[in-house]
Amino acid sequence: MESLYNLGEKEWLACCGSLKFAQEMFSAGPFSNYQDALTAATDIWFNKVDVNGWLEAFAAHPQIGESPSKTHKSPTSAQWSKGEQSTALATATDSTLQELYEWNIRYRQKFGFVFLIFASGRSTPEILAEMKRRYQNRPIGEFELAAKEQMKITELRLSKLFSANTTPDSTTKIQN
Amino acid sequence: MESLYNLGEKEWLACCGSLKFAQEMFSAGPFSNYQDALTAATDIWFNKVDVNGWLEAFAAHPQIGESPSKTHKSPTSAQWSKGEQSTALATATDSTLQELYEWNIRYRQKFGFVFLIFASGRSTPEILAEMKRRYQNRPIGEFELAAKEQMKITELRLSKLFSANTTPDSTTKIQN
Repeated sequence: MESLYNLGEKEWLACCGSLKFAQEMFSAGPFSNYQDALTAATDIWFNKVDVNGWLEAFAAHPQIGESPSKTHKSPTSAQWSKGEQSTALATATDSTLQELYEWNIRYRQKFGFVFLIFASGRSTPEILAEMKRRYQNRPIGEFELAAKEQMKITELRLSKLFSANTTPDSTTKIQN
Repeated sequence: MESLYNLGEKEWLACCGSLKFAQEMFSAGPFSNYQDALTAATDIWFNKVDVNGWLEAFAAHPQIGESPSKTHKSPTSAQWSKGEQSTALATATDSTLQELYEWNIRYRQKFGFVFLIFASGRSTPEILAEMKRRYQNRPIGEFELAAKEQMKITELRLSKLFSANTTPDSTTKIQN
């Protein structure tokens, strides 16, 4: 008897804000473990979600250094964002936050999407330095790099999703 | 005394349907010759226009095998599209046109933008074969490839723009 994680589109959308990603994960599932889900997610993100879907997923993130909107489509995603940025926020000062704010604007003006970084455990000065370095990139190079950062974020969130659904009485878990 | 081609945003937009491209070309000009304009255009397209601008430019093209819409934003671009597709149309049969139509839909479903190819001098069977081959690509790879095809189209159109504006009495040419 194997446990299957029968997760819905809403849960997948909290991991990655592309509707196509969520739909494809739902179709590919249910998964018996985290590793299978991660393999499917990686394939779907890089081979099936188109560039519009990438932009859609990027748009689901708050600006780094800012809290997610209270009306965020996915409350789970919004809460995870906060946690992922906790080191950054703990190491921020008024002046680094101001600098982050200004570079966010500059970055968005050049690339047309929000600066995306796997922020877990990273300090604000580290993130700022990375943003300035990446600002030099060509738009297409930066676009692909941002997609790779999104995949790292998705991976972490998938692991949270699976560890949060390990109890036998979870409502989102079925037995077969 | 050097001739300068003082072209407006409208003319640049006919070469490449990204507003950012047209604005940057207008700022970078006027150009004294085609080669200078091409150098600027290549830099702007690959280094300054963001991925949204690439999608905007792609969207300005009709589906291959179809006539541009009569309400196209740029009548010059629409007319050039027709010319660029003349070999394709001359070599098309009802069945290849139907196949082209079906593959256009399939391609757009996978990639989220219109199939773009430097069509000048290419027959419909050639274009169809290329579309089927490119359909196998990953979305990001195909996106970058389409941008390179767009640049080839822009290059040809720039050359038309400059050869059309060589007469000293051209209204879009100034002397200094």
